[in-house]
Amino acid sequence: MTPQDTPEKSIPLKIIPLGGLGEIGLNMTVFEYDGVILVVDSGLMFPEDYMLGVDIVIPDYEYLRENKERVAGIVLTHCHEDHIGALPFLLKDIPAPVYATPFTIALVSHKLEEKDLLSRVDLHKIKPRESFSIGPFHIEFVRASHSVVDGVSLAIRTPAGLIVHTGDFKITHGQLDDEATDVSRLAQLGEEGVLALLSDSTNAEKEGYTLSESEIGATLEKAVRDSSGRVIVALFASNVPRLAQIVNIAAKTGKKIVFNGRSIEVSMRIAQELGYINVPPGMQIDVSEVKNYEDNEVLLVTTGSQGEPMSALARVAAGAHKQIKIRDGDTVILSSKFIPGNEKAITGIINNLYRRGAEVIYEKISAIHVSGHAFREELKLMMHLTRPRYFMPVHGEYRHLLHHARLAEKVGIPKNRILLAQNGNVINFMDEVGWIGESVDTGRTFVDGKGIGDVGRKVLKDRRALSEHGMVVATMVLDFDTGVVIYGPELLSRGFVFEDEKGHLLQDAQCVIMDAVEQLDLSGPDRIPLIEAATQQALRRFFNYVIRRRPVIVPLVLEV
Amino acid sequence: MTPQDTPEKSIPLKIIPLGGLGEIGLNMTVFEYDGVILVVDSGLMFPEDYMLGVDIVIPDYEYLRENKERVAGIVLTHCHEDHIGALPFLLKDIPAPVYATPFTIALVSHKLEEKDLLSRVDLHKIKPRESFSIGPFHIEFVRASHSVVDGVSLAIRTPAGLIVHTGDFKITHGQLDDEATDVSRLAQLGEEGVLALLSDSTNAEKEGYTLSESEIGATLEKAVRDSSGRVIVALFASNVPRLAQIVNIAAKTGKKIVFNGRSIEVSMRIAQELGYINVPPGMQIDVSEVKNYEDNEVLLVTTGSQGEPMSALARVAAGAHKQIKIRDGDTVILSSKFIPGNEKAITGIINNLYRRGAEVIYEKISAIHVSGHAFREELKLMMHLTRPRYFMPVHGEYRHLLHHARLAEKVGIPKNRILLAQNGNVINFMDEVGWIGESVDTGRTFVDGKGIGDVGRKVLKDRRALSEHGMVVATMVLDFDTGVVIYGPELLSRGFVFEDEKGHLLQDAQCVIMDAVEQLDLSGPDRIPLIEAATQQALRRFFNYVIRRRPVIVPLVLEV
Repeated sequence: MTPQDTPEKSIPLKIIPLGGLGEIGLNMTVFEYDGVILVVDSGLMFPEDYMLGVDIVIPDYEYLRENKERVAGIVLTHCHEDHIGALPFLLKDIPAPVYATPFTIALVSHKLEEKDLLSRVDLHKIKPRESFSIGPFHIEFVRASHSVVDGVSLAIRTPAGLIVHTGDFKITHGQLDDEATDVSRLAQLGEEGVLALLSDSTNAEKEGYTLSESEIGATLEKAVRDSSGRVIVALFASNVPRLAQIVNIAAKTGKKIVFNGRSIEVSMRIAQELGYINVPPGMQIDVSEVKNYEDNEVLLVTTGSQGEPMSALARVAAGAHKQIKIRDGDTVILSSKFIPGNEKAITGIINNLYRRGAEVIYEKISAIHVSGHAFREELKLMMHLTRPRYFMPVHGEYRHLLHHARLAEKVGIPKNRILLAQNGNVINFMDEVGWIGESVDTGRTFVDGKGIGDVGRKVLKDRRALSEHGMVVATMVLDFDTGVVIYGPELLSRGFVFEDEKGHLLQDAQCVIMDAVEQLDLSGPDRIPLIEAATQQALRRFFNYVIRRRPVIVPLVLEV
Repeated sequence: MTPQDTPEKSIPLKIIPLGGLGEIGLNMTVFEYDGVILVVDSGLMFPEDYMLGVDIVIPDYEYLRENKERVAGIVLTHCHEDHIGALPFLLKDIPAPVYATPFTIALVSHKLEEKDLLSRVDLHKIKPRESFSIGPFHIEFVRASHSVVDGVSLAIRTPAGLIVHTGDFKITHGQLDDEATDVSRLAQLGEEGVLALLSDSTNAEKEGYTLSESEIGATLEKAVRDSSGRVIVALFASNVPRLAQIVNIAAKTGKKIVFNGRSIEVSMRIAQELGYINVPPGMQIDVSEVKNYEDNEVLLVTTGSQGEPMSALARVAAGAHKQIKIRDGDTVILSSKFIPGNEKAITGIINNLYRRGAEVIYEKISAIHVSGHAFREELKLMMHLTRPRYFMPVHGEYRHLLHHARLAEKVGIPKNRILLAQNGNVINFMDEVGWIGESVDTGRTFVDGKGIGDVGRKVLKDRRALSEHGMVVATMVLDFDTGVVIYGPELLSRGFVFEDEKGHLLQDAQCVIMDAVEQLDLSGPDRIPLIEAATQQALRRFFNYVIRRRPVIVPLVLEV
C-alpha cells in the first residue's frame, strides 16, 4: 500500500470517541472528514452507586452541539440502550437523519414517539449488505451476531481508507443462520484492505469462545421439560434470539406462552412484524388466562432478570404479583448475566423464589446464558478476517482495551499500529498513517428527572452527606433592632436518629448552641453569619463527640 | 443407636441460630441445655447498599440479653469478622468467658484492648484436639483449614448427643500439613456417632473441589519472578496461610519485603509470635526504605484488595501514595476474591493501576486466589466422614442452605433428618430425635457511629429520600398576634440542583408557596400546620412538574 498523491488523501480522516472508551456504556463515536461529521451510536449508561438520584448518564456531546450544522447523519449499530439510549437527547439538540437496521429503527421509532420526537426526525432502514452515503462516507452494514437481532458491524469507506467498526459482536457457529456474523463479507473487506479495525473489547479478558445460542437452547429446553409446574423465564426484552428460542421450546413442549411486561410486548410485536419470531396461532395467552390452564401448560416470559425492584419478577418473588403466586413445582429461569453491581438484588430475588417453593435456574448453577460479546478466540478471528493496518480497541473499561491491544500484538499487528485511545482523543488517518492527536472535551452528563446536566459534583457531594447521617436544621430568629434571640434555637432533623432518642439529644444540642452564641460579640453588622458559623461548628463537634455522626447541619438565622 | 432411659435424655438440647442462616455474615449460634447457654461465634456483617450511613450490622441478640445470667461461655471458631466482629458489643452486655485458638485469642485481645474491654473478660486459649467444658457442654477443637490460621470445627458433646459444628472450612490436600483439616479426627467422631452435623454452606452451589493453596503459590511465585519492577500483593490481613506463602516466595526470589498497613502489621506480629510465619532476618524493610533498593528487589504486601477507598492500594492506584508511585514494570497482584458488591470499586482500581503502567494480576485473569469454603465434593466428604444422624446446613444465604440440604439428600441422609432452619428457629434434640420447634426473636442491629440500634426503617427511609433529590427548607415567620407573614417564604436547599440553576427555580417556588398560602383560612388556631401542609404539597407538585424531582421538603413556620 503506497500513498497516492490524490487531493483527497491530504485531508485527514478524524475519529473521535466521545464515549465508550474506558467505560461500559455511553458508546458514541464521531467520524469527521472534510468538515462533514458522522456519528456512530448514541448510548447511555446506568448510574453508578455514587451518582445518587441520577436516573441515567449520557455522553457530554458539547463537541457535536458546537458543530451542529456539520452533523450529517447518525448511524446506530444495534438497539441496546448503551448504543441508542442517548439518542432522544441528541436528536432534540441535533435532529440529523438516523440510519439503522429495521429492528433498531422500529424500536427507536417507538421510543421517539413516546417522547413526541418522531415527527422531527428522518429515520432510514438499511439492511445488512446494503450501502448508503453520508457526505464523503460510504457506509455498508455487515451482519453481526449479538444478544439482539439486526445488529451490524460497519464498513465505512472514506477517501482516507476503509474503516471497519465492529459494533457489539460475537462469532459463534450453530445459531440461526440468518443471524450469524457475516464472516464472508468481513473476509472480503479484509481482501479489499482495511485501514483500521475498531473492535468490541468487552470480553477481551475471557479465554476461548462464547457458547453458541443453540447450546443454551438445549439447557433451556431441558429445564422447561423438567418442570412439573409453571415455567417463568426472565430475560432482557431486547434479546430476540433468546425469545425466539423460548417460543420454539414452548411450541415443542406444547405450552401456552404469556409475554408479561411492556418492554417484552414491544419487542415481541416488532420481532413478529419483521418475521424474526413466529408465534403459532392459539399459543399466546394473556396473563389473566393463566388460571384457566394446568400449571404445566404455562410458560411465562418476563423481564426483571437484573433484580429491578419494580419488575414483575421482583413482585412474583415478593409474593406481591396479582396473577402469579409461586407454588411448589414452579420453575423460574433467569436467562441473563449477573451484571456487576446487580448481584445482591438478583440473589435476593433468587432466595425469595426458593423460599416460596420454586425451582430456580441461573447462571451460577447452569449454562443458561451466553454473552453477546466475543471472547478472545473470536476477537482474534475478527482480526484475521479483516487484516487491518491499524487496530483500535473500543467498547470497554481501560483493562479491556489494554488486554485487547495486547491480543492484537500477539496476533502480529505491530505495536506502533495499535491505537490505545481514550474518550476525546482525536485519531487521525492520512496517507495510510494513523496517529492520536490533540483532544476535544468529553465527559458525562447526568440526567435527573427533567434536569440534564444540572446535577454535578457539589450536588452529589451534598446528597452523599445527607444520605449518610441525615440533616439537622437549627433555626433562630433575632429581633432586627436589638439582635436579641426572640425564637429558638429550634432543632429539626431528618434521617439522623430515631424519634424516641431524638428529644434528649436535640435538647442538649440546643444548650450547646446557646453556649456557643453567648460567647460571640454580636454588636457588629455580621451577626447572622457569625451565629450561623458558631452554630455549625458547635453542633458538628457535639454530634461527633456524643454519637459520632456527621449530619448535614443547616443553621438558619433570621431577623424580623 | 437406641435411646437410653437415662434422666438426662429427657431434657432437650436446643440449638438456636441467632444469625448467619439466610445471609452471609452475622454468624451466631446458641446451644442450650438444662438452662445453660453456650454461644458459638459472634459475627458482624458489612452494611448493604440500602443501609445508608450504617457502619456495621450485628445480630440482634436480645434473646441473650434476656437470659444473660445463663450465658456460660462464648466459643469462637476462627478470627474472621463475620465470626468475631460483634464480640466487643456482646461482651459489653454479657462479659462471659471466651474460648478460642491462640491466633484467634491474640487477635481478639488486640481488638478488646483497643476498646478498653480486655480487663473485663476471661480469654481461654485452646488448641486443636484439646477439650474443655462449659456446664453440660464438653467441647473439643478440631483443626479446620480455611483462609485463616487456627480455624477449628467444634465437636460439642452434650447429654443429648454429639454435635459437630464445622465452622468455616475446606478440605483440600497439598497445603501446609499443620493447617490441613483434621480428617482423621472427624472420621473418629463419625465412628463415635454424630447426632447432628452443622455444616458451612457458602459454596454449596460450586461443583468439584477448591484449588489447593499450594497451587496458588505456584501462580504467585511465577508472577513475582516475571515482574521486572516492584511487586505489590494485596490481600486480606487475616489470610495468614497466604501471607506465609508470600514470605516464602520473597525468600526464594531474594526480595526485601514490606508489610504496609496496620491490620497486616498486627496479623504478621501475631503470626510470627505464634510461629506461623518466619521472616528471615534482614528481609523485612520499612516502606520508607523502599527507595534505597532497586525496583526488582522489593515486594510489598498490603490490604485494599476489595477496593476500599481509603486503603493504601487505592491511594497507590490514584497516584496519591506518599512513598509508592507506580512505574512501568511494576506488578500488582490482587490475591483475593471479588466480593459481590465490591466489583466496581475493585475494577476501578485495576483500571487505574493499568493506566499508571503496572501489570495487574487478578482472579478474572489468573488463578491467584482460592476460596476458603468447601466446594460440593468437600461438603460431601464432610458428611461421609462424620456420618451424622441429622444434618443442618448453616452459614449461607437461603439458596446456599437449600442446595446444601439437597446435596445431603443425594448423599443419602433421609429428608426428614435434614433440618433446613432459619434464624431464630429453636432446633430441639431429645432421645435421638431432632425437630424445629417454636422461634425466638432475632434480627439485625445497625451500628452507626456510637449509636447501636437507633437507626431503623424510618431513619433509613429519610436518608434514602435525602440521597436521591436532596432537600428544600421553606421558612416563614408570622406575627404572633396578627398571623401576618413578616419574613419569607425563604427557601434553602442542599443536594437539589446546581447553584446557578437554583435562583430562578427557587424564586418561582416562593411564588407558588405564596399562592397556596393565600387561599388558606388562617383565622383558626391551627394556622401553622395548615401553612406547613400547604407549603409541602405545593412545593412537591411544583418540583415534580417543573423538574421531576422529589426533594425532601421541610416547611418551617414560626411565630414571633
